[in-house]
Amino acid sequence: MREVKGIVGYLITPYTKDGNQVDEAMIEILVDLLIKNGVHAIAPLGSTGESAYLSLDEWAQVAEVTIKKTAGRVPTVIGVSALTTDTTIQMAQKAEELGADAVMVLPLSYWKLSENEIFDHYSRISDSISIPIMAYNNPATAGVDMMPKLLVKMFNEIKNVCMVKESSGDIQRMHEIYKLSNGNLPFFNGCNPIALEAFAAGAAGWCTAAPNLIPDETLQLWNAVQKGDLNEARKVFYKQLPILEFILKGGLPSTIKAALKIQGFEVGDPRLPLMPLANEGQQELKQLIDKL
Amino acid sequence: MREVKGIVGYLITPYTKDGNQVDEAMIEILVDLLIKNGVHAIAPLGSTGESAYLSLDEWAQVAEVTIKKTAGRVPTVIGVSALTTDTTIQMAQKAEELGADAVMVLPLSYWKLSENEIFDHYSRISDSISIPIMAYNNPATAGVDMMPKLLVKMFNEIKNVCMVKESSGDIQRMHEIYKLSNGNLPFFNGCNPIALEAFAAGAAGWCTAAPNLIPDETLQLWNAVQKGDLNEARKVFYKQLPILEFILKGGLPSTIKAALKIQGFEVGDPRLPLMPLANEGQQELKQLIDKL
Amino acid sequence: MREVKGIVGYLITPYTKDGNQVDEAMIEILVDLLIKNGVHAIAPLGSTGESAYLSLDEWAQVAEVTIKKTAGRVPTVIGVSALTTDTTIQMAQKAEELGADAVMVLPLSYWKLSENEIFDHYSRISDSISIPIMAYNNPATAGVDMMPKLLVKMFNEIKNVCMVKESSGDIQRMHEIYKLSNGNLPFFNGCNPIALEAFAAGAAGWCTAAPNLIPDETLQLWNAVQKGDLNEARKVFYKQLPILEFILKGGLPSTIKAALKIQGFEVGDPRLPLMPLANEGQQELKQLIDKL
Amino acid sequence: MREVKGIVGYLITPYTKDGNQVDEAMIEILVDLLIKNGVHAIAPLGSTGESAYLSLDEWAQVAEVTIKKTAGRVPTVIGVSALTTDTTIQMAQKAEELGADAVMVLPLSYWKLSENEIFDHYSRISDSISIPIMAYNNPATAGVDMMPKLLVKMFNEIKNVCMVKESSGDIQRMHEIYKLSNGNLPFFNGCNPIALEAFAAGAAGWCTAAPNLIPDETLQLWNAVQKGDLNEARKVFYKQLPILEFILKGGLPSTIKAALKIQGFEVGDPRLPLMPLANEGQQELKQLIDKL
Repeated sequence: MREVKGIVGYLITPYTKDGNQVDEAMIEILVDLLIKNGVHAIAPLGSTGESAYLSLDEWAQVAEVTIKKTAGRVPTVIGVSALTTDTTIQMAQKAEELGADAVMVLPLSYWKLSENEIFDHYSRISDSISIPIMAYNNPATAGVDMMPKLLVKMFNEIKNVCMVKESSGDIQRMHEIYKLSNGNLPFFNGCNPIALEAFAAGAAGWCTAAPNLIPDETLQLWNAVQKGDLNEARKVFYKQLPILEFILKGGLPSTIKAALKIQGFEVGDPRLPLMPLANEGQQELKQLIDKL
Repeated sequence: MREVKGIVGYLITPYTKDGNQVDEAMIEILVDLLIKNGVHAIAPLGSTGESAYLSLDEWAQVAEVTIKKTAGRVPTVIGVSALTTDTTIQMAQKAEELGADAVMVLPLSYWKLSENEIFDHYSRISDSISIPIMAYNNPATAGVDMMPKLLVKMFNEIKNVCMVKESSGDIQRMHEIYKLSNGNLPFFNGCNPIALEAFAAGAAGWCTAAPNLIPDETLQLWNAVQKGDLNEARKVFYKQLPILEFILKGGLPSTIKAALKIQGFEVGDPRLPLMPLANEGQQELKQLIDKL
Repeated sequence: MREVKGIVGYLITPYTKDGNQVDEAMIEILVDLLIKNGVHAIAPLGSTGESAYLSLDEWAQVAEVTIKKTAGRVPTVIGVSALTTDTTIQMAQKAEELGADAVMVLPLSYWKLSENEIFDHYSRISDSISIPIMAYNNPATAGVDMMPKLLVKMFNEIKNVCMVKESSGDIQRMHEIYKLSNGNLPFFNGCNPIALEAFAAGAAGWCTAAPNLIPDETLQLWNAVQKGDLNEARKVFYKQLPILEFILKGGLPSTIKAALKIQGFEVGDPRLPLMPLANEGQQELKQLIDKL
Repeated sequence: MREVKGIVGYLITPYTKDGNQVDEAMIEILVDLLIKNGVHAIAPLGSTGESAYLSLDEWAQVAEVTIKKTAGRVPTVIGVSALTTDTTIQMAQKAEELGADAVMVLPLSYWKLSENEIFDHYSRISDSISIPIMAYNNPATAGVDMMPKLLVKMFNEIKNVCMVKESSGDIQRMHEIYKLSNGNLPFFNGCNPIALEAFAAGAAGWCTAAPNLIPDETLQLWNAVQKGDLNEARKVFYKQLPILEFILKGGLPSTIKAALKIQGFEVGDPRLPLMPLANEGQQELKQLIDKL
C-alpha cells in the first residue's frame, strides 16, 4: 500500500462543449498539470468532481482515464459513493480493478442512517475489496454525519478503513479522532478555510481542489507545517484564505471550473441544476487571484 | 385535470424474496388494498417508496404497474426526483406518457442549490410536460429547503406548479403559504405527526403512508375536518398519534414494510444500507396497532 | 385555587416620562382595560412585562399594583424569574403574600442547567409557597429548554406545579405533554402565531399580549374553539395572524408599547438596550390594525 | 493603557461556608496564586466568576478586593455585564473608579438584540468611561451572538473598544476578525478546547480559568507559540486537552471550584440552581490531573 499524505489534489470533471459528455482529453491535461504543480496525490470523483451528478458509466470512464494518465507518478484516491450499498460495492470493485491506490467512501443519505447501518455499509464494502478505504465525512453535502467515535471504531474494527477525511469544518472533531485513536488514525482535512488549524491539530494532509488554481500557496502551507514553522504557516495561510473561502462558498464545481476557464482551460459548466459562476463572481475571483 | 385532495396514500416498493427485484404482483395487491380502504389518491415512488434507492428502470416499472392497476379509480401522483435536471425531466415525461395524473417533484441536493437554481429546475421540468406538478419540500431527506415565498412564487410564475406538499413539519410554513397566496395555493401536509394542525391551518390533504396500516383512522380525521368538527378531529388524531410518531421515527420504508408484514404481506426489506425494523421495534409496532 | 384558563392577558410595564420610573397609574388603566375587554386572567411581569429588566423593588411594585387593581375580578398570574434559586423564592413568596392566584416560573440560564438542576429549582420554589405554579418554557428568551418529559415529571412529582406555558412554538411538544400526562396537565400556548393549532391540540388557554390591541379577535378565537367550530376558528385566526406575527417578530415590549401609544396610552419606551419600535414599524402596525 | 496579552487568568468567586457570602480572604489567596504561577493578567467576574449570579454589591466587592490585591503586578480586566444598559454603565464606571485596567463587556439578552441595539449599548458604555473595553462574545451563555463584522465595526467606530474575546468556538470567526481588521484588532480566545488553533490563527491571548489547576501547561502552550514552534505547541496542547474539555463540559464554576477543593482551597459551591460537581465527576477530574 502506498502512503497517502500531504496535498491531495481534487479534479473537476470536464465536459465537452457539444453534448455534455465527459471530456477525456481535458482530464489528461488537468492530471498532468496537478502533478507537475506538485500535488502528492490525485483524487477524481469527489464533491468537486460532481461524482453525484454522473451516471455509473461516466463515473467509471473518469476513474479509468485518471488512473491511466496518473500512471503511478503519485497515488490515486478514487471517490466512491452511492445511495445503496450494492452500487457502492460495484464502484469500489471497479476502482480496484482499474488500479486505484485507495477509495474514498462517502455514505449518502435519503433516509437518515443509524450508526449501525453506516458501520455495516463500510464493512460490506471493505469485504468486497482489498485496497485502503478513506472514510469521508461531509455532513453538509451528504446528509450523513459520522462522529469521531464511529470513525475510530470503524478504523479499529473494519479491515480496510485506514484513513479519514473530515469535512465538517469542526476542528474539535479532529481532536477527538486524535485522542480516541492515540494519534494512530491519519485524518485529512476537507474543509478549505480551516487548513491552517487542521495542520496545527495534526492532520496528515489536506484534500483540496485549490491546487487547480493556487498550487504554490497550498504547497507552501504544507512545507511550513513540515518544518514546524507556525509563523510562516500562518502567513501563507492568510494570504490564500480569501480564495479558499471564495471557492467553498460558491460551490467547488462552479468556482473551480470558473478558475480553470480563467486560466484558459475549456472545462464546461457544472451540470444542471447547478449553474456556472455568474459574471460578478468571475470578476471577484479574477481579482482575488490577481491580488495574490 | 383531476383534482387531488384528501388522503393521498403512499405506496412502499415491494421486492421479491429472491434477488431484490421489484415485485409487480405485490404492487397490484397494495394498490387494490389502498383504494378499497378509501384513499383519495395513490402515490408511488415517494420517500416511502424508496424512490431514491431504485434504478431508473425500476422506477419506471413501479410507475407503470401502479398507474395501470389504479386504472383511473383515483388519481395517481408519481414521485419524480433526481440530482440532475435532465434525469428529472426524463422521469417526468415518462410519468406523463404512462398516464399519471400529476407528478410530485422533489429537488435533491448534493451541492446546495440557490433559489435561482431551484426555480430554473422546476421551470425546465414544467416546460417539458403538460400535467400538474406538486412541488415537494422535504428538507430533512432531500437537503433542499424551499421556503414559502419561493413555493408561492413558483405557483404564480411556473405553469404546471399548482400544488405543494410541505413536509418540513413547521406549521408556520403553511400559514405563510396561505397568506402569500391568499389561500389559493393548495398545500398538502407530509409530516404525519402534525396532521391535525395542518388540517386546522387549511391543508387540502394529507400525503401519508399510514393508510397501509390504519386506513380507517386516517379517513376519520379527514371526515371530521370536512365536517368542521374540531373536538372529533382532535379525538381521532390523538388516537392514532402514537402510530404516526412511530412510523416516522423509525423511517417510513422500514416501519411501513414491517407493518405490512404483520398483516401478512411479503413485501421484502428496504434496500441496504437501510435495515429492516428490528425485532424490538416490530413488537412495539404490533402493540401500538393492537391498542387502537 | 381558582382555575386559570382561556385568554390570559399579558401586561407591559409602563414607565413615567420623566425618569423611567414604573407608572402605577398607567398599570391601573391597562388592568381595567384588559378586564373590561374580556380577558380571563391578568398576567404582569412576563416576557412582555420586561420582568428581566426590572429591579427587585420595581418587580414587587408592579405585582402589588396589578393584584390590588384586579381585585379578584379575574385570577392573577405573576411572573417570577431570576438567575438564582434564592431570589426566585423571594419573589414567589412575595407574590403569594401580595395575593397572587398563581405564579408563572421561568428558569433563566447563564450556565446551562441540567434537568436535575431545573427539577431541584422548581422543588425548592414549590416548597416555599402554597399557591399554584405554572411552569414556563421559553427557550428562545430564557436559554433553558424544558422538554415535555421533564415538564410532566415535575407536574407529577412537585406539589404546586399544575400548569405549563409552552412558548417553544413546536406543536409536537404539546402532543407529548398531552400523551405523557394522559391529557391531565393543562398546557397554555405562549407562541402567538400558532394559537390556532395549539387550541386544536387541546390547549387550556392562550397566554398573550395581543388583547392589549385586538381583544375581540383573541376572544373570538377562544369562543370558536369552545364551540368546537374549526372553520370559524380558522377564519378568525387567519384574520389576526398578520398582527400576531408582527408583534412577536418585533419583540413584544417594543410592539405592544407602540400599539398602546397608537391607542393614546403614554406607556413609555422599553428599557435600553431595547429600543422602541422604529417609525417604519409603527406605520406598518397601524396599517395592520386598520385593515382588521 | 497597559497592554493585555498572553494568558488571562479567570477567577472563580469563592463563598464562605456559613451563609454564602463572598469570601474576600480567599479571593486574595487565589489572586496571589495565579500571579505567582505566571498569568499575564487577572480577570474576575467573568462566566467562571459567576458574575451573573451575584448582586450588584457583591460584584463591586469582588472587583475591589481583586484590584487591590493585584496591586498592579499584572493588568486587571473586570467583567461587566447586565441586562440593562444603565446598570452596565454603573458597573463600568465603578470598575474604572476602583482602578481596573480594562473592562470586559458582555451584552446579555432576554429579548434578542439587533446589531443596532448592541452597537448603541457599547457606545453608551464607552462614552461613560475612559478605560479600554474588551468586547466579549459568548453566544452560548449570553444569548447574544456578535458576528465578526459587528465586532470590527465597533472596534473602528467606538472609542474604547480595542480588544475582542471570542468564545463562540468557531475558528473561522477569528479569521474574519483578522481579515476585516487587517490584523489590527487583537482577539483573545475564550473557548478552551480550541486554544491551539486560536493561537495558530493569531490570537493575542487566551482567556481561561485553566491556570487555577494547570498553570504550567497553559504557559507552556503560550511559550511554544511565542517561539513559533508548532510541534511543541501541538504536543503541550494535546497533553492538557482532556482537562480543558472536562472543565468546559462540566460548567466552569462547578469544575474549577472542584479543582480548587482538590488542591485544598475551601471556595464553596456555585450558587443554586447551579450544583457542585458530583462525586463521579470529582473522581474523573482527579484522575485527569494525576495523569498529566
